[in-house]
Amino acid sequence: MTVDTLVRALIERRETVAAVESLTGGLLAATLVTVPGVSAVFRGGLVVYATDLKATLAGVPEKLLKERGPVDPDVAVALAHGGRERCRADWGLSTTGVAGPEPQDGVPVGTVYVAVAGPAASSVRRLVLAGDRQAIRVAAVDAAFSLLGERLAVR
Amino acid sequence: MTVDTLVRALIERRETVAAVESLTGGLLAATLVTVPGVSAVFRGGLVVYATDLKATLAGVPEKLLKERGPVDPDVAVALAHGGRERCRADWGLSTTGVAGPEPQDGVPVGTVYVAVAGPAASSVRRLVLAGDRQAIRVAAVDAAFSLLGERLAVR
Repeated sequence: MTVDTLVRALIERRETVAAVESLTGGLLAATLVTVPGVSAVFRGGLVVYATDLKATLAGVPEKLLKERGPVDPDVAVALAHGGRERCRADWGLSTTGVAGPEPQDGVPVGTVYVAVAGPAASSVRRLVLAGDRQAIRVAAVDAAFSLLGERLAVR
Repeated sequence: MTVDTLVRALIERRETVAAVESLTGGLLAATLVTVPGVSAVFRGGLVVYATDLKATLAGVPEKLLKERGPVDPDVAVALAHGGRERCRADWGLSTTGVAGPEPQDGVPVGTVYVAVAGPAASSVRRLVLAGDRQAIRVAAVDAAFSLLGERLAVR
């Protein structure tokens, strides 16, 4: 799933996308905007690096964040929903996880969740990634694109 | 001004930063998070690619956006202020401009404004950049870092 293929599929469907990013810190959005013509389908996004911004900017319930911490499948889904709503997009894409170099609250480096929230339902995927900070981020972005691609039935 | 130098200066000052990005589409935030330890100073950000999100997410007055369009020095300053407030950071950094390949509302490709909003005052700089989309974005990010570096008196 290349980003060009994904953007072309969204353009054909006339559907829009928003990104809500924790560990990828803007890389998912920055990868989308490398595609000329993406402004027809990319609305924008939220970079919720600090945990409290996941609640205040993206609307993740504070109780969920306190009980589970930020690296959690339900948090990932809530982030994707929040992006979809706050950016008024058809699809919300999210990433949360540990890029390293140190574990975070006992969660090992490379543990990542990516989620997609769409008009009808949401999906989330757990990843265990290897490599340095940048490698983990690039792989997380690719996995988020693949998850949306599956929902759009793009090959 | 390297991003490492900038992050180290913020860590020393115990001051935080937020990013509000239009044309750079997440690249400024993604560049900040390449630096290990940045979580001590990077709060998060807003990617306001669609013009309406500059108002709804970052709080730019709609009247200003309608009268001037999104590529404007006062819009850049309002974006930086909005990021500072909504992400609860000491410093807000913003970018707005035309990455191309086509001009936008009569504004030529390469016209970019970067702004910094801080505890006491704001600064904005107009850039006329050459190159392709990625080159313009990278130069805009560098210029935003330099503008903040000047405010922090970093060498």
